[in-house]
Amino acid sequence: MKEKEQLINYLSQFISEERYNRIFEVSGNRTHHVAIIVENLYQSHNMSAVLRTAECLGVQNVHIIENNFEYKVSKEVSMGADKWLSMYRYHDKENNTEACLQAVKAAGYKIVATMPAEHDCLLDDIDITEPKAFLFGTELLGLTPQAIAMADEFVKIPMYGFTESYNISVSVALTMMNVVQRLHHSDIHWQLSPEELLDLRLSWIKKSIKDVESIIERYKQSY
Amino acid sequence: MKEKEQLINYLSQFISEERYNRIFEVSGNRTHHVAIIVENLYQSHNMSAVLRTAECLGVQNVHIIENNFEYKVSKEVSMGADKWLSMYRYHDKENNTEACLQAVKAAGYKIVATMPAEHDCLLDDIDITEPKAFLFGTELLGLTPQAIAMADEFVKIPMYGFTESYNISVSVALTMMNVVQRLHHSDIHWQLSPEELLDLRLSWIKKSIKDVESIIERYKQSY
Repeated sequence: MKEKEQLINYLSQFISEERYNRIFEVSGNRTHHVAIIVENLYQSHNMSAVLRTAECLGVQNVHIIENNFEYKVSKEVSMGADKWLSMYRYHDKENNTEACLQAVKAAGYKIVATMPAEHDCLLDDIDITEPKAFLFGTELLGLTPQAIAMADEFVKIPMYGFTESYNISVSVALTMMNVVQRLHHSDIHWQLSPEELLDLRLSWIKKSIKDVESIIERYKQSY
Repeated sequence: MKEKEQLINYLSQFISEERYNRIFEVSGNRTHHVAIIVENLYQSHNMSAVLRTAECLGVQNVHIIENNFEYKVSKEVSMGADKWLSMYRYHDKENNTEACLQAVKAAGYKIVATMPAEHDCLLDDIDITEPKAFLFGTELLGLTPQAIAMADEFVKIPMYGFTESYNISVSVALTMMNVVQRLHHSDIHWQLSPEELLDLRLSWIKKSIKDVESIIERYKQSY
């Protein structure tokens, strides 16, 4: 960790103080305690709105399951949010849903499927003391049977009208705002660990410096 | 009111019991206490997501300011939500923003502009004891100077990342979910008045019956 701290310190001279402070401030609000999984979300404007919401809320990890299509990001909608997120794509397996959910579970998350079915528990009732990954399907087809079978819990967003579901990017925002706000107001340790913080800050500082690899090369040679 | 009740009673034979009950249930969750105003929202997928959110949350009145463009609804995204809403369009004046905000203020609403400016109060701090109309601008240009000048209050949605705003349909959803949930948990009388309820139910029943005008014609002749 000391080495990374020294490198961050060295690289700080190549970015503005404002950017440097902003990186420290924003990384302090990042969390791995909750994550987002989207299954087969093929509309680029919705995908981009999801990434932008994740970035705004500090949800660092977004898992993208791509069965039978490839995800695209609309720059105009995402506002470059994807640059500051950790995105995990599942697109080269026979069953990408299974591959993703197995990996996320192995990392210690319970899978919460968001569905409008009658019997589901409401957002406010979801226990967030342990790590949870929230799983969202496409609007027309919903989650696949495989995704539903592998989910640990189901949750429903409150609805009071005739329409039976929200737009997918709206669902992600309402769900994640609810859990992130509750985390911020809780005693749960939702922040990154000191080592995770260092890694994230270093990666963000690197992204903020042009031709950073040759700068690091020269830095290493001087020791 | 008695006449309307009798007509509703008569028309109820032309729709299923399930639909009839659903109309009563959903109308009970409708509110005029808060309203949505969107200014110059030209992207049809965003407009449609806004209408779908309004319908899901029971926010009956949506005001649409159209300066220099005409609004379009994408049926695939709105899921027919607009059928169950009261939409007010402002498009034929020289200054449609002024016309809309004057009309909404005259109806007794305070105008709350949603903006990401630093000095704004957060969503949870907005007083909802009196009627409020929440005003949303486009993503690229924000609200017009006219809209800002006529606003009574400003509100900011919590944000913890680098990105400085949410997608417009996400902003509407996060804002309105916050205020609607607070209304539902409060002692404020946010529901429609008995007369408003009757009018809404009658209009929804009419929309649910094919060739309803000739049925009403025959009904009136039989008295």
